[in-house]
Amino acid sequence: MPEVLSPGATIGILGGGQLARMMALAAAPLGLKCHIYAPEGDNPAFDVAAHRTVARYEDAAALARFAASVSVVTYEFENVPATTASVLAPLVPVLPGPQALATTQDRLTEKDFIRATGLETPAYRAVDSDADLVAAVEALGRPAVLKTRRMGYDGKGQVMIRPETDLANARRTLGGAPAILEAFVPFEREVSVVAARGRDGTVHAFDVCENEHRDHILARTTVPARLAPAARHAALEHAARLATALDYVGVLAVEFFVVRVEGMERVLVNEIAPRVHNSGHWTIDGAQTSQFEQHIRAIAGWPLGAPQRLGRIVMDNLIGAQADDWQTLLASPGAHLHLYGKAESRPGRKMGHVTRVFAEDVGDEPGETR
Amino acid sequence: MPEVLSPGATIGILGGGQLARMMALAAAPLGLKCHIYAPEGDNPAFDVAAHRTVARYEDAAALARFAASVSVVTYEFENVPATTASVLAPLVPVLPGPQALATTQDRLTEKDFIRATGLETPAYRAVDSDADLVAAVEALGRPAVLKTRRMGYDGKGQVMIRPETDLANARRTLGGAPAILEAFVPFEREVSVVAARGRDGTVHAFDVCENEHRDHILARTTVPARLAPAARHAALEHAARLATALDYVGVLAVEFFVVRVEGMERVLVNEIAPRVHNSGHWTIDGAQTSQFEQHIRAIAGWPLGAPQRLGRIVMDNLIGAQADDWQTLLASPGAHLHLYGKAESRPGRKMGHVTRVFAEDVGDEPGETR
Repeated sequence: MPEVLSPGATIGILGGGQLARMMALAAAPLGLKCHIYAPEGDNPAFDVAAHRTVARYEDAAALARFAASVSVVTYEFENVPATTASVLAPLVPVLPGPQALATTQDRLTEKDFIRATGLETPAYRAVDSDADLVAAVEALGRPAVLKTRRMGYDGKGQVMIRPETDLANARRTLGGAPAILEAFVPFEREVSVVAARGRDGTVHAFDVCENEHRDHILARTTVPARLAPAARHAALEHAARLATALDYVGVLAVEFFVVRVEGMERVLVNEIAPRVHNSGHWTIDGAQTSQFEQHIRAIAGWPLGAPQRLGRIVMDNLIGAQADDWQTLLASPGAHLHLYGKAESRPGRKMGHVTRVFAEDVGDEPGETR
Repeated sequence: MPEVLSPGATIGILGGGQLARMMALAAAPLGLKCHIYAPEGDNPAFDVAAHRTVARYEDAAALARFAASVSVVTYEFENVPATTASVLAPLVPVLPGPQALATTQDRLTEKDFIRATGLETPAYRAVDSDADLVAAVEALGRPAVLKTRRMGYDGKGQVMIRPETDLANARRTLGGAPAILEAFVPFEREVSVVAARGRDGTVHAFDVCENEHRDHILARTTVPARLAPAARHAALEHAARLATALDYVGVLAVEFFVVRVEGMERVLVNEIAPRVHNSGHWTIDGAQTSQFEQHIRAIAGWPLGAPQRLGRIVMDNLIGAQADDWQTLLASPGAHLHLYGKAESRPGRKMGHVTRVFAEDVGDEPGETR
């Protein structure tokens, strides 16, 4: 069992992006220092951390020095290379643990795992060859989505199989990588549950989030999601069940499709992100405890905080040039602006977000009676 | 006029303690970097800042390099040496400006200034010699308080003149430094107003805070203060008047004594702190915008945020060994723990604080319906 941290301890974080940055900003008020490990590049987390290492994720010597300097290691992305985890794990506790990483890094393993816990997912088939793809499309029909098993995010590593799509071409688009074909689900909405599980097994979930994507990138999260009570209850239960089955420590997000079956709303598990999640950014301003603080508390071996919402929430991502509106947002009463300190704005790049907290059921002005 | 900052700019902060640390934590979500300048020692702000300089405040070469690396300089303490300000001021905007520093660094100048704006203070007399002290005590009576004009804080640099006190001895206790004698005020309560003034002259004050001291150190702040409406209004007006008279940019705190005159509450100005203030720490968890974010917005030339309270507030300082209770506080629902990351705990040292936000007029459980 990893030690319970004391204030003054240092947390190691793999990755230097905005998630690591917001973790470090949450760790500081708890008296914890952070050591960020990231390859060369634009690493906004460096600006708010006590210690920084610039090195490749495969650099065993740098990883060993990093491990020696921290009490626990966590990460901001699920694609931590297996070599990185295998160098670190014997030297320092890595949380969430190896099982969570191994399960969620591979879409096929992940979906098999989700089904094994008794939960529903869209239908899927493994695709390792052109012949596999032909058979899978025959079984699942068109449209369907072909996704690489590894390394996909924000719509990268996937291609839609439409009636007219040439199958061999589609596989080539993904470089012939091991893939899965997922049945297209005519969903009504996408929702997610961000939940924390402590070392003692306690699970505290934030309320269900409703997510709108544009160009495969999260654009807006509203909380609470529009969802029938039974489906809301199911989503929260499913997230807790998956966290427990993974023996998870930290924050995870479970994304769901909301479908209507015989007039009733049902939630199908789309995927699990073994980390703090964009759809949970609203918790910084809109919940008693933020997802970042929850994650730090969990991996420190500390009790979780209260996850209650402070109102109705609208969180908008600032993608690319949208962050150029910072002056308008700064002057907008009740808009909580968060910029990630990235040196360069690019189309599709997450530059920041803005959260508005509205009094529950009263008025439409943010923060009126918060 | 200093430039209006853009995200990505760097703010220079003189001082590396908890106030600088919380400023840096507030600057980051606004996309701003911080460069902390502090002498050798335990500098908790270093852990959350992009850039750090360890040098004496009188090191002109280090100050010049610091000035060249930042867009604006601010400070966490009013006792910035005159030499520091005079090296920096020609090179980079220093906010709050030189007038605020010069006025508030000296208790006599400060009180003369407060009176000149038409506000009440306790009676006082300059004391530069034993003869001055004898005359001052004759005029103001005993008890009274003898304070050095410069460099006092948290009860340091002051001595009570009681009926039995030997006057020459009292002056020697303060090293014979230039001093003032202040009439003892039989106050009912101590309150403060933390207010921000933007570059455009807008003043946004947080609600009036009620402060309890133990051993001359702030122990607890509750908001709102118990105060008659007229006195509350006066305190808020006085803070705005003083900020405007100083042509102030940034956050300041004005401390008041509440006295009862002919059955009515009156507020007398005790002192002005030209910086973010311990009695405003509750705003991190208990206001729409924290005092630290307000300060950063003001010195960046940006619009101020909304200062509304989110409920009834109790903020307790964690002094010395009180911070050892961190585990209890972490497990206490609704307690927002803030530890300053100081390496060493000493009696009387501010190690952290904890804020509880209670629903207004409803129940007594923190955060119940926030």
